[in-house]
Amino acid sequence: MPASTAYAEYHRCLSRLADLDAALALLNWDQEIMMPKGAGPRRAGQLATLAGLRHQLYLTDLPPLLAALEDAAELDEIQRLNVARSRTDFAKQSRLPAELVAELTRAASEGQFAWEAAKEASDFAAFAPFLERIIDLKRRQADCYGFEATPYDALLDDYERGLTVAQLDAYFDALAGDLRQLLSEVQQGQTPEADFLRQVIDEERQWKFTLEVLDLLGFDAHYGRQDRSAHPFSTAMGMEDVRITTRLEADHLLDAVYSTIHEFGHALYERNLPPEAYGLPQAQASSLALHESQSRFWENEVGRSRAFVAWIEPRLRSCFPDGLRGRSTDELFRALNRVEASLIRTQADELTYHLHIILRYRLEKDLIEGRLAVRQLPEAWNAGMKELLGIDVPDDRRGVLQDVHWSIGAWGYFPTYSLGSLYAAQWRAQIENELGSLATLIEHERLAEVRAWLRERIHSQGSLYTADELCRRVTGRSLDPDLFVSALRSKLQTVYGFSPRPSVS
Amino acid sequence: MPASTAYAEYHRCLSRLADLDAALALLNWDQEIMMPKGAGPRRAGQLATLAGLRHQLYLTDLPPLLAALEDAAELDEIQRLNVARSRTDFAKQSRLPAELVAELTRAASEGQFAWEAAKEASDFAAFAPFLERIIDLKRRQADCYGFEATPYDALLDDYERGLTVAQLDAYFDALAGDLRQLLSEVQQGQTPEADFLRQVIDEERQWKFTLEVLDLLGFDAHYGRQDRSAHPFSTAMGMEDVRITTRLEADHLLDAVYSTIHEFGHALYERNLPPEAYGLPQAQASSLALHESQSRFWENEVGRSRAFVAWIEPRLRSCFPDGLRGRSTDELFRALNRVEASLIRTQADELTYHLHIILRYRLEKDLIEGRLAVRQLPEAWNAGMKELLGIDVPDDRRGVLQDVHWSIGAWGYFPTYSLGSLYAAQWRAQIENELGSLATLIEHERLAEVRAWLRERIHSQGSLYTADELCRRVTGRSLDPDLFVSALRSKLQTVYGFSPRPSVS
Repeated sequence: MPASTAYAEYHRCLSRLADLDAALALLNWDQEIMMPKGAGPRRAGQLATLAGLRHQLYLTDLPPLLAALEDAAELDEIQRLNVARSRTDFAKQSRLPAELVAELTRAASEGQFAWEAAKEASDFAAFAPFLERIIDLKRRQADCYGFEATPYDALLDDYERGLTVAQLDAYFDALAGDLRQLLSEVQQGQTPEADFLRQVIDEERQWKFTLEVLDLLGFDAHYGRQDRSAHPFSTAMGMEDVRITTRLEADHLLDAVYSTIHEFGHALYERNLPPEAYGLPQAQASSLALHESQSRFWENEVGRSRAFVAWIEPRLRSCFPDGLRGRSTDELFRALNRVEASLIRTQADELTYHLHIILRYRLEKDLIEGRLAVRQLPEAWNAGMKELLGIDVPDDRRGVLQDVHWSIGAWGYFPTYSLGSLYAAQWRAQIENELGSLATLIEHERLAEVRAWLRERIHSQGSLYTADELCRRVTGRSLDPDLFVSALRSKLQTVYGFSPRPSVS
Repeated sequence: MPASTAYAEYHRCLSRLADLDAALALLNWDQEIMMPKGAGPRRAGQLATLAGLRHQLYLTDLPPLLAALEDAAELDEIQRLNVARSRTDFAKQSRLPAELVAELTRAASEGQFAWEAAKEASDFAAFAPFLERIIDLKRRQADCYGFEATPYDALLDDYERGLTVAQLDAYFDALAGDLRQLLSEVQQGQTPEADFLRQVIDEERQWKFTLEVLDLLGFDAHYGRQDRSAHPFSTAMGMEDVRITTRLEADHLLDAVYSTIHEFGHALYERNLPPEAYGLPQAQASSLALHESQSRFWENEVGRSRAFVAWIEPRLRSCFPDGLRGRSTDELFRALNRVEASLIRTQADELTYHLHIILRYRLEKDLIEGRLAVRQLPEAWNAGMKELLGIDVPDDRRGVLQDVHWSIGAWGYFPTYSLGSLYAAQWRAQIENELGSLATLIEHERLAEVRAWLRERIHSQGSLYTADELCRRVTGRSLDPDLFVSALRSKLQTVYGFSPRPSVS
């Protein structure tokens, strides 16, 4: 078989698998947004069947095509990168038995329902057996993959290729130190007033405002949609169908707006993957940290900048006239950047957010590595909140039960949220090197240039490179967490009016 | 392998196929209701992949299990009926190549998009190539199935097992004669006033009223949902997830209400299929005519009866105070049963509806059998409307382009709509024999008994029997179209005040 024929068949095979992935994505999206509640157990079975089938097809159909592409000499560079990436993935995935894949999918679906009920009732004991089952399955998964230092490395690799606990511990131990130092400085500064943002606004008006913001950012509703959900998320059924959700609460307009901006970043990544490569590694996002770097870039680097606040302020005033009466742009900017140790991760500010993540990272490592039992988890959670954020947890609903991730088997996922912020700061620095200050780009309504930069440098590369490889290609060096810390310090100095600290090399 | 093990594996195999069917149903539902427009072509490919895969699994996995169940002596009666039904289906389906199944699915998805655009623009020529492709594929499908008299028989059998053109021609020729006679009598009676139903009502209020009606009828929102769509339909992703849609227009409240009642009938059938049999023939609706008999029963036998009109009238008045001011229950009942030859099938009354169907039936037979070319279709349509209904068609949008069916490959589907009305009249007669008059059951709010009767006699039997077999089991005889005609004549005599005609034996 000539290499071009083999490559076309390989692409067709991956495209069929992508079609199954799209069906799975839709079954999941629908379960979250549309499905009648009584269909939960049946849907879990449907998801398990499709996931098992997808895995089985992957294991049967792909190997002969990869073998036929053994002689890569006739392929061009992009084709070689695609095949190499498929080969690595296959070596990993083929270690999972189809039965375990189906079990994981079913446990995720059932686990999510159990978690929702347990959270509602703040009843950790009701959720504990589901959590134990998930942890057991995740350990089996790690055993199948194989690992050197710790099973957690194997799970981490699913979301962030090549990343290890050793590296993460180094990043996070330093970050925890820097952020707790910064938090104590902030706590001695002038706390901005923010209560004026907490007034009841009609949800229909909030909803319309989030759609207006999406439009301003360049979201194309011909290829996507926004819905409401309890926990905001984004998903895609191909690059022509990218969907996001936002959460509306009567007195939390700004949460909805920033949640929309965040998910817009994810959607833009999926939307800008190259359509002609549908199914290929080139048409898949590279890693969760890179994905999160896109949402954090729009949410924090763009959205919480003074320039952006000034830009949306007139529209915000017309939606929210009473709350902003007599408030200046600066007051609004400061309120939107207020730092406050609090209970809920998804409502945390740009600084304390990462302390929430570091807590989860440490706990899930301990659970997977067997140093912590499920029954001890609430206590360990509460102790960690006290140590890292200095606050007491009143109940499990606002504590250990607040996040969906563990219930759906997303272990090793949390750290990527923080890495996303670190990468976002690095993209921003690079954009400013190349296109000039982000503030100016926003003021002059030149966001199309920013979108084009992201598409060309990051989105269109898909997963041909790891996050670290792409970071080096785009910025000339590996991830440098100091960029994030120093940019945040500088913004918070403006907001809180404390003195610059001499930088430490 | 013991028969019980073989049977369990056979059930597991069908249950996996049902999971794929559920994914396909959801992809279709979503395409209709939720999907961003730009995703059309990609979704067509996803549907084609899943349908092809489903067909392939069916052909590979089922035969050894059916072979292992060759010796049916150890199975109970229900198990034997399930296996026998699977065997017949398999003999038919195995004649279709997977490539044709995938092509049909893709053509259906692309055809629907082309039809929507062509209808919008009233541009038949733009749709013609898609229609030709579909007809070509349907003929190939009929050839694969095989047939004796006409390829149309083979297509009909997909929706209505065992029914033939010979039988349908007999039913429909007689029905056309009876209904045209009845129409001419009606046209000499006193036409009820109905304009008062055509006033603009806020769509949000209409929507709420349709939900109220669903609740009254016994629709359980824990296991289903209603949405809006251009063309009302129902679908199910298992018996725990039954979905219907309705169409709202500002000045057509009653259309939305009766569309909701109609789709409720479909949904109740799917909801009442036995959950423990998920995947088996016993958990699938028997035929389209039986399905339609459920929707027609609720829409017409229940919904357009004087008793039902009296029952919902107070609620309707509170939603619609201006329109009903000074109108009696009788005036409302008469308005809701007004007969008028008109252009659009889905808005037609209980009498002229069947003349629309007979036209489509005759045209699709002619197209499939090659007596009519696609380019001649609009002219043939318009001539048929003149002959059967006596009206002129102003444009293709309100003529030959009005229905989605042909675009999605549903050929042989239309006749089942009329059969549905005929069966509905026969169910009603049987219910009245057993439970007493339907009017009394409605007046005394005893609809739960009617739902229980339908569940026990019809829904819970799934597709173990054909429509004709079930009709004989439930009512003691085959379908008798005279029951429908004479009941309709009797109602229209009340509405139009013309004299009873001596019945002809």
